[in-house]
Amino acid sequence: MHHLRILTGLTKVWRITILPKLPEILELRTVAQSRLFTIESMKLRFSNGVERLYERLPKRGREAVIVVAINQKNELILIREYLAGFHKYELNLPKGTVDPGESYEEAANRELKEEAGFGAKKLDYLREITLAPGHMGFSLHVILARELFPESLPGDEPEPMEVEQYPFEEADDLVSSVFISESRSIAAIKIAEVFLSRESKNSRV
Amino acid sequence: MHHLRILTGLTKVWRITILPKLPEILELRTVAQSRLFTIESMKLRFSNGVERLYERLPKRGREAVIVVAINQKNELILIREYLAGFHKYELNLPKGTVDPGESYEEAANRELKEEAGFGAKKLDYLREITLAPGHMGFSLHVILARELFPESLPGDEPEPMEVEQYPFEEADDLVSSVFISESRSIAAIKIAEVFLSRESKNSRV
Repeated sequence: MHHLRILTGLTKVWRITILPKLPEILELRTVAQSRLFTIESMKLRFSNGVERLYERLPKRGREAVIVVAINQKNELILIREYLAGFHKYELNLPKGTVDPGESYEEAANRELKEEAGFGAKKLDYLREITLAPGHMGFSLHVILARELFPESLPGDEPEPMEVEQYPFEEADDLVSSVFISESRSIAAIKIAEVFLSRESKNSRV
Repeated sequence: MHHLRILTGLTKVWRITILPKLPEILELRTVAQSRLFTIESMKLRFSNGVERLYERLPKRGREAVIVVAINQKNELILIREYLAGFHKYELNLPKGTVDPGESYEEAANRELKEEAGFGAKKLDYLREITLAPGHMGFSLHVILARELFPESLPGDEPEPMEVEQYPFEEADDLVSSVFISESRSIAAIKIAEVFLSRESKNSRV
């Protein structure tokens, strides 16, 4: 019964994935560029003939990871960081870019050491998530880090980050609270919850 | 026992929210501007004296909403839209900007009619979520829409969107699948799940 339901929902969705025809890119050019960002203008013709001018921020630079780190007391590791977009501090998950030659898991482990002072003996790749794919080419790889041990590495942060250990089973309170707002962190927590609940179901079979 | 645990987790987090001192903004200027985006350069001095040059995309224009719409069969309303950031189609939640004079709930209802062909008799404001607050001033208001009825409004989309109705109780499969990738949609689904589970618990008391 459970398997049948999974089949129904995702199979229905899968069926329609073969239908749409991508719009034609009539023109693509860089309209602005800064140290970190590029803005592209995109002239598109959709398959129904309608033409539209889009703008997007294409991906630039390295891949990035976001880390759902859970310690042996089943606590989620949160950092408190300065958020320039809103000029405020908020709780967040550790994240950062992948260095040349690093795997996603290695990058996650290094960022966790730099930002939160923990290493992980167990790292699982969960999935890739996007930010605002309608307008931006940015994405992050979600890594689950477990079996933590204290280990710090110097990072490139302007100031040491406060680290908070929050009961993972109370994640519902956290994602409904004003202490955290970032979609990517809330999405990564949800994805980790699904992974952990399936892992625990499988281990009981 | 349950209430005690809620108190413990969030109270611990609350305690530290009074500590950090915001960095001083030494300089803030627009370095690039396009039709849709502005890029600002920000020279900051953190409370430990370290100075850093940041870049951010400040908020521009109107507030925006994202709609978790659930029909009477407990199905989630998904749209299939073109995503310029990755030049591909993907499933997503309806979203859009708030028109002058509209409430968030009214904007959500209108976007739902324009993008998915449904109106809602019951609309709940859930919370505000941010995108990538470390670098961007963008946010969205999450609205839960229920008691749906068929009603279409002409929108500003370049092509009609395919609408998919997906079993909400199978959301775990969806957020783990390749059919949807956007953090904001996955986060909004999680936030709606928490709201609905609490509503259902409260109604049983």
